[in-house]
Amino acid sequence: MTWKTAVANLPYGGAKGGIGVDPSELSASELERLTRVFTQKIHDLIGVHTDVPAPDMGTGPQTMAWILDEYSKFHGHSPAVVTGKPIDLGGSLGRDAATGRGVLFATEALLNEYGKSVSGQRFVIQGFGNVGSWAAQLINEKGGKIVAVSDITGAIKNSNGLDIPSLLKYSKENRGIKGFHGGDSIDPKSILVEDCDVLIPAALGGVINRENANEIKAKFIVEAANHPTDPDADEILKKKGVVILPDIYANSGGVTVSYFEWVQNIQGFMWNEEKVNNELKTYMTKGFKDVKEMCQTHNCDLRMGAFTLAVNRVARATVLRGWEA
Amino acid sequence: MTWKTAVANLPYGGAKGGIGVDPSELSASELERLTRVFTQKIHDLIGVHTDVPAPDMGTGPQTMAWILDEYSKFHGHSPAVVTGKPIDLGGSLGRDAATGRGVLFATEALLNEYGKSVSGQRFVIQGFGNVGSWAAQLINEKGGKIVAVSDITGAIKNSNGLDIPSLLKYSKENRGIKGFHGGDSIDPKSILVEDCDVLIPAALGGVINRENANEIKAKFIVEAANHPTDPDADEILKKKGVVILPDIYANSGGVTVSYFEWVQNIQGFMWNEEKVNNELKTYMTKGFKDVKEMCQTHNCDLRMGAFTLAVNRVARATVLRGWEA
Amino acid sequence: MTWKTAVANLPYGGAKGGIGVDPSELSASELERLTRVFTQKIHDLIGVHTDVPAPDMGTGPQTMAWILDEYSKFHGHSPAVVTGKPIDLGGSLGRDAATGRGVLFATEALLNEYGKSVSGQRFVIQGFGNVGSWAAQLINEKGGKIVAVSDITGAIKNSNGLDIPSLLKYSKENRGIKGFHGGDSIDPKSILVEDCDVLIPAALGGVINRENANEIKAKFIVEAANHPTDPDADEILKKKGVVILPDIYANSGGVTVSYFEWVQNIQGFMWNEEKVNNELKTYMTKGFKDVKEMCQTHNCDLRMGAFTLAVNRVARATVLRGWEA
Amino acid sequence: MTWKTAVANLPYGGAKGGIGVDPSELSASELERLTRVFTQKIHDLIGVHTDVPAPDMGTGPQTMAWILDEYSKFHGHSPAVVTGKPIDLGGSLGRDAATGRGVLFATEALLNEYGKSVSGQRFVIQGFGNVGSWAAQLINEKGGKIVAVSDITGAIKNSNGLDIPSLLKYSKENRGIKGFHGGDSIDPKSILVEDCDVLIPAALGGVINRENANEIKAKFIVEAANHPTDPDADEILKKKGVVILPDIYANSGGVTVSYFEWVQNIQGFMWNEEKVNNELKTYMTKGFKDVKEMCQTHNCDLRMGAFTLAVNRVARATVLRGWEA
Amino acid sequence: MTWKTAVANLPYGGAKGGIGVDPSELSASELERLTRVFTQKIHDLIGVHTDVPAPDMGTGPQTMAWILDEYSKFHGHSPAVVTGKPIDLGGSLGRDAATGRGVLFATEALLNEYGKSVSGQRFVIQGFGNVGSWAAQLINEKGGKIVAVSDITGAIKNSNGLDIPSLLKYSKENRGIKGFHGGDSIDPKSILVEDCDVLIPAALGGVINRENANEIKAKFIVEAANHPTDPDADEILKKKGVVILPDIYANSGGVTVSYFEWVQNIQGFMWNEEKVNNELKTYMTKGFKDVKEMCQTHNCDLRMGAFTLAVNRVARATVLRGWEA
Amino acid sequence: MTWKTAVANLPYGGAKGGIGVDPSELSASELERLTRVFTQKIHDLIGVHTDVPAPDMGTGPQTMAWILDEYSKFHGHSPAVVTGKPIDLGGSLGRDAATGRGVLFATEALLNEYGKSVSGQRFVIQGFGNVGSWAAQLINEKGGKIVAVSDITGAIKNSNGLDIPSLLKYSKENRGIKGFHGGDSIDPKSILVEDCDVLIPAALGGVINRENANEIKAKFIVEAANHPTDPDADEILKKKGVVILPDIYANSGGVTVSYFEWVQNIQGFMWNEEKVNNELKTYMTKGFKDVKEMCQTHNCDLRMGAFTLAVNRVARATVLRGWEA
Repeated sequence: MTWKTAVANLPYGGAKGGIGVDPSELSASELERLTRVFTQKIHDLIGVHTDVPAPDMGTGPQTMAWILDEYSKFHGHSPAVVTGKPIDLGGSLGRDAATGRGVLFATEALLNEYGKSVSGQRFVIQGFGNVGSWAAQLINEKGGKIVAVSDITGAIKNSNGLDIPSLLKYSKENRGIKGFHGGDSIDPKSILVEDCDVLIPAALGGVINRENANEIKAKFIVEAANHPTDPDADEILKKKGVVILPDIYANSGGVTVSYFEWVQNIQGFMWNEEKVNNELKTYMTKGFKDVKEMCQTHNCDLRMGAFTLAVNRVARATVLRGWEA
Repeated sequence: MTWKTAVANLPYGGAKGGIGVDPSELSASELERLTRVFTQKIHDLIGVHTDVPAPDMGTGPQTMAWILDEYSKFHGHSPAVVTGKPIDLGGSLGRDAATGRGVLFATEALLNEYGKSVSGQRFVIQGFGNVGSWAAQLINEKGGKIVAVSDITGAIKNSNGLDIPSLLKYSKENRGIKGFHGGDSIDPKSILVEDCDVLIPAALGGVINRENANEIKAKFIVEAANHPTDPDADEILKKKGVVILPDIYANSGGVTVSYFEWVQNIQGFMWNEEKVNNELKTYMTKGFKDVKEMCQTHNCDLRMGAFTLAVNRVARATVLRGWEA
Repeated sequence: MTWKTAVANLPYGGAKGGIGVDPSELSASELERLTRVFTQKIHDLIGVHTDVPAPDMGTGPQTMAWILDEYSKFHGHSPAVVTGKPIDLGGSLGRDAATGRGVLFATEALLNEYGKSVSGQRFVIQGFGNVGSWAAQLINEKGGKIVAVSDITGAIKNSNGLDIPSLLKYSKENRGIKGFHGGDSIDPKSILVEDCDVLIPAALGGVINRENANEIKAKFIVEAANHPTDPDADEILKKKGVVILPDIYANSGGVTVSYFEWVQNIQGFMWNEEKVNNELKTYMTKGFKDVKEMCQTHNCDLRMGAFTLAVNRVARATVLRGWEA
Repeated sequence: MTWKTAVANLPYGGAKGGIGVDPSELSASELERLTRVFTQKIHDLIGVHTDVPAPDMGTGPQTMAWILDEYSKFHGHSPAVVTGKPIDLGGSLGRDAATGRGVLFATEALLNEYGKSVSGQRFVIQGFGNVGSWAAQLINEKGGKIVAVSDITGAIKNSNGLDIPSLLKYSKENRGIKGFHGGDSIDPKSILVEDCDVLIPAALGGVINRENANEIKAKFIVEAANHPTDPDADEILKKKGVVILPDIYANSGGVTVSYFEWVQNIQGFMWNEEKVNNELKTYMTKGFKDVKEMCQTHNCDLRMGAFTLAVNRVARATVLRGWEA
Repeated sequence: MTWKTAVANLPYGGAKGGIGVDPSELSASELERLTRVFTQKIHDLIGVHTDVPAPDMGTGPQTMAWILDEYSKFHGHSPAVVTGKPIDLGGSLGRDAATGRGVLFATEALLNEYGKSVSGQRFVIQGFGNVGSWAAQLINEKGGKIVAVSDITGAIKNSNGLDIPSLLKYSKENRGIKGFHGGDSIDPKSILVEDCDVLIPAALGGVINRENANEIKAKFIVEAANHPTDPDADEILKKKGVVILPDIYANSGGVTVSYFEWVQNIQGFMWNEEKVNNELKTYMTKGFKDVKEMCQTHNCDLRMGAFTLAVNRVARATVLRGWEA
Repeated sequence: MTWKTAVANLPYGGAKGGIGVDPSELSASELERLTRVFTQKIHDLIGVHTDVPAPDMGTGPQTMAWILDEYSKFHGHSPAVVTGKPIDLGGSLGRDAATGRGVLFATEALLNEYGKSVSGQRFVIQGFGNVGSWAAQLINEKGGKIVAVSDITGAIKNSNGLDIPSLLKYSKENRGIKGFHGGDSIDPKSILVEDCDVLIPAALGGVINRENANEIKAKFIVEAANHPTDPDADEILKKKGVVILPDIYANSGGVTVSYFEWVQNIQGFMWNEEKVNNELKTYMTKGFKDVKEMCQTHNCDLRMGAFTLAVNRVARATVLRGWEA
């Protein structure tokens, strides 16, 4: 997380903490009490200017609300102590769509570098959860043609472009894309090697590997998921000339809007959704520019450029803070 | 106050505190010392993120300055701990006019809903204090024709529209409108039933009641005062088809700019007056939209819509904060 | 400093503190440890809302970084506790150029008052350090013709206007302007009396005095240095009709951007350079307007107007805070 | 409580707080959660050096343990924040017997003033709860002859002196004295007028009143209960020459050992029971001496002397603290 | 440590923390800086009422002094934050001898139980470091005859009793007992099976095991070292009727005086050495009595009695603190 | 003050602060307000464990009470933040007499060293203020014969010993000893050279100097005043064999009981007067022993011994605290 926030130029580091428990086996009341006692134990270690929790696996806006409420007993009302809060308690507009929207802005920045735009490109999206479906909707609005999509229920293809609004509606009503009539059902395993310009893996890690890397037809891969491409595939694709936009940049829209939520709480003043989206675009576009500069300086690919940027930023700050404790 | 701030979507609740004393019987030095000792007693109960006092009956900017000074001895310089401060100590530009300007924006939002605008409408304003006189000035600037005005010294009428700039000047110089030559003197009691499109009660509560409700000729009532319409009148006017813009929305411009003052102090950066007025317009317009949506959902009048909106917001936040303390 | 910040309308006072030591005789490690122990001793006296150190003689961004790091051990991460930080640790974009850019904006405001603009005026700049060189570059970009410049290595003159970009490059490479071929070398002592419209002393104090005041040919003097004009010269120049833009206004661009840096840290959100420069222009332009109003009210020159403005602001705030401690 | 602690010369004032609830209707878990939430709400108002709760009606050592545990979450381990704690969590030895033991010491001091001692006097004790039974046991150990005792189950009399150890055992086993064979059962209402030297009302308030005051045969009344003698009775008994040891002195042993518990917690070092009892004796004896001095100075009875002492102490401290806040 | 302090009835728990470093490889300056940085990192986790460090392996009074100095920068002068300090900085008199003196008091309590006293018994002491040599000196002063002693340099025996003052002097001068002429040199391995009444292992753990347990001739074993007797030996000795005074009681004199040091710091008032020793005797004697009571209640040996006492105390406190967090 | 407290082995340093004002020119109300505002300015610099003010020139118990009251507004009730308080607000019994009583104990310790006791010695006391009169009374009670006394009103002599109780009564009633009939009036200037065994200067500094040193007849001088003996006189008296008990030891009884007051406040438990006096005797006697040991080690006089002791103690603590900040 430290490297992702460093690429995005957010004043954040990274840390994780949790409880070994299966939340699905607890009642809402038990979950709430567990969350409160956990907060009591860590309330002096987190804080508005220290560590700011956000939801991850098995937690969500309601968990953040409980942490906020319990934390505030000790330190007074402090909405900025968590992000990913419900909007009624100080959450940010636009956070739900943020990672997907960030993928759009990242893709636009990348294509622009090659004299292209979203409009006119053909896209394949693996994964139709929060990230993938928002990316699909926004790319479609910008004129991109989405020719294949998959989720855990199946995969669907339409060379003329899928009707995304219908697919979104269908998927919501049927809890999956399986059975959608606006295209042909295909084997989900083959989705990554479908013919397209831009491949967006937005599901699990490690899906692009030595098994399928050679067959990939896309010219660009935008890593909306975390580490979808393994090192072997990275090597193979590099040789094939496929350009990969690395995850620590491409899917940083979510943490960026988490940061915006914190900023709004700190400032005591909420932004409207247009402002959130515009600032996200500014951050994503600047991020691409910074990564690209690194690539040019060090003559390296985008992944190496992103990591070099991140490590340099952290190192420079560390050295400046000094050595003599 | 909780309901008013909930309608306006401000992150504020409501509370009152005071001292049983007649300030007019104390010297400035006694008032200052009383205020300081009061502050010493409550300094741990108020705070930038807890409760933020603002002036009410018998207090004003100078009182807020004393509270700020005394509070800061305990907690360091904290301009955000009070609002309604003198501008020299961190008060907001535009706060003086805020309630009146809010009445203008509320009226515009209401008329717009009916395909009308301020320009071309005839207004009657009861009360020519801070709220009424600012409302008159701003409505006049927008092209509204103000046909009658009253204050504690008298009432005046001019069917062709009063010359508001002259009236403001006269009223300031003569501490009241009585004797102004630009119109005909009328019985102050009859002002509410004068012929007009929009009636703006901006004085005391309970002035529109079963005695006069039936005689009211206005199509719209904008409650610039607190609860000017009693429940009986509300019933009568509803039947007559008079549209009432309720006080908890219509006069929320003052507390909204108090909130803006707090935001500016929190951010350490003051807004120019144009910014204050624009944000106020945004908040008032959004408030009308939110109330209207409630009315449509619940098929109710504006007053019921405003309260429903407020109660829903507070309830939703309460539930989200959790039950297991 | 209190008067300078009062003219600029910043919520800052003024204070100084330091250690009696020659930093050039200490190793970096010794300097860092000295700075840390100093910070340990004063950490309860400075603070985000109390006193905010910034670099002065013998200190710089690295010193601020050490103070920030040590202070944060005691009070948690607090970037707003110092300004003039390295950008990697929360410093503001545009701060390096801020004083010089402020001189430009001040000059523009002054000339505008006389129906003139930078473009078309002939400038002489004494001093080519951080302030003078930035002023030269920015005035040049705005179309001003710079006819003479001096620094500690020498002085150079070109009635057709010096090629500033070349001079900046030359000066950087040669650690001084001496030897630059784009003009004629002149006696540095004579630079102040060179023929021009606007004279900008940007070096030491007391350089304009009874020795040379009578010979000065400029119509305007913009005091980029601190008190370059002594009281005798002030008197003489006044009689000659030379208009002097006083230092407490003219060179306040630096502290203004220090304040912006603090604001950005307080808000947790950094501004891009364009925003920094625009806000600086707003503050400088407003400052001139405020000073000018004082001059008109009190029928005085700009220096007296600036001091009157400053003293009035501080006095008004002091009185409002109250007398009964 | 302020007057009682002032007589005892403890650095304590007095205050009460509570929750309107019948604890007998709540489960242990509900009581604990209620106590914890209550503590969360008041944790900033109580404190080791502010207000120190102790058990009263409907609360006990377990309640204090919960308050201590919850308070310590906010302020760190703070055993001194409550008194009347279980001994395992920092409660004082000897606190259980403290009020009864204080009654003994008070009685000794009183009798000593009249050249008498506990040994040889005949006592009647109304009430055989915590206070009465401890008083009985300790008086018996000192050689006092207890000729009658009552509790809510009945009253018993033995002119040769009751066998107190047997009675204590019997009462514990049978939850009351009713049926004890070591004496004759009498009407509980008549116990106060039984023939004796010292009458110790240790039950409810108002039991000695105009109905029975004239019939009282005791020479001394030691008020172990709170205000057992009403003002009418006070007047009558005074005329009869009965000496009354007032409650604010006579039953102050309990709060005195609560104070000792606090002292032990503050000092981090617990006293053995002998030390507790010796210090209690020192405080009770000194208290009597101080009250007596007041009586001599002001020529008044013991009740008036005790109140005069208390009011004087509080007044003197108040004046010394100053007037100019 | 929790069990040891529970047996001793100290209000302490147990925790350990450290740095993986060989202090013998660091200079004093490096050790000091390491200790200070370590303290900076943990200063919010330790505290006068939280966790109180004391010296252990590789640290000593000087280390505690550095921790105290660094901690005090953050929290003000706080001598009670560490124990085992140098006396000049608030350390306790008598702490050096405390464990050895505690062994004496424990032995006296044990022997007294069997109608014996130190005087007249024959002792063997394994280990002549801080604990063993102090124990030897104090037992000798009380009339005990010490017939054999060992340390890492050798072992010495004298059936008529060693001249302890001479041996202490010799050992100090020669850094070991080897070569002392007041007795016969023996094989250190055989010391534990020498003929005696009381065996005091005061060196390493596990020295009494199945190899030698059967040959032990002592009637009493006082565990001055930590767990010198392994479980097998425990079983064998039990069958032989050897009475073992367990380590968690027998060597608790050190932590008890650490606690006294903390008490003195808390109270701001230092005790003279006589007071320290008397209180230590009181605590050790009470500890034996409490353990013995457990043995009688549960019909178990002293080791089991000590652990039962400790676990019961902690459990009772835990239950009283409550379950509903 | 640092050296005096170091000799007395108190955990105190030394510091002074004050306001440049003549308190006799202010009303009580003005003094109180001045003291409160002063306290507001320094409340973060003083504290129970930091710097603890006590009365000096122009201040007294009432001043301390005001400081305590004002300080407590900021930090909660904190009686230990000042010493020399009124007893009603937590002052110590016995503090009024403390310096005089300390002089007695010091004198006893000194005489004891020479095989003498107070009884049987002849004393001359210069100064009959708080210190001198208490010393006289206590020496008289111990059997010392006081043959001459002086104060600002005069001097009186009686070779058979003055009747001290009468003199104290007379002096109190007449605000000075002048006119007392129990002796012969003498020239106050000659009092220091009166024939006696022990001379106690208890007035101003510098009174024993080269003018009178040679004529002094006392064998012992006990410096109850601050530096009554100047360096020249010190030299002369040394040669004459006069033994001087130096001020930093001899008059340390006052600060010692100030420390006891602080201890009692810290512990929340007040001592009776007997305990205060006994502890004072313990401290004074131990102080003499420590000084004497220094004298023996370094073969020096008592003054040098006292300073050596003090400097050594401070130095040792300083070194132990460490060098690497």
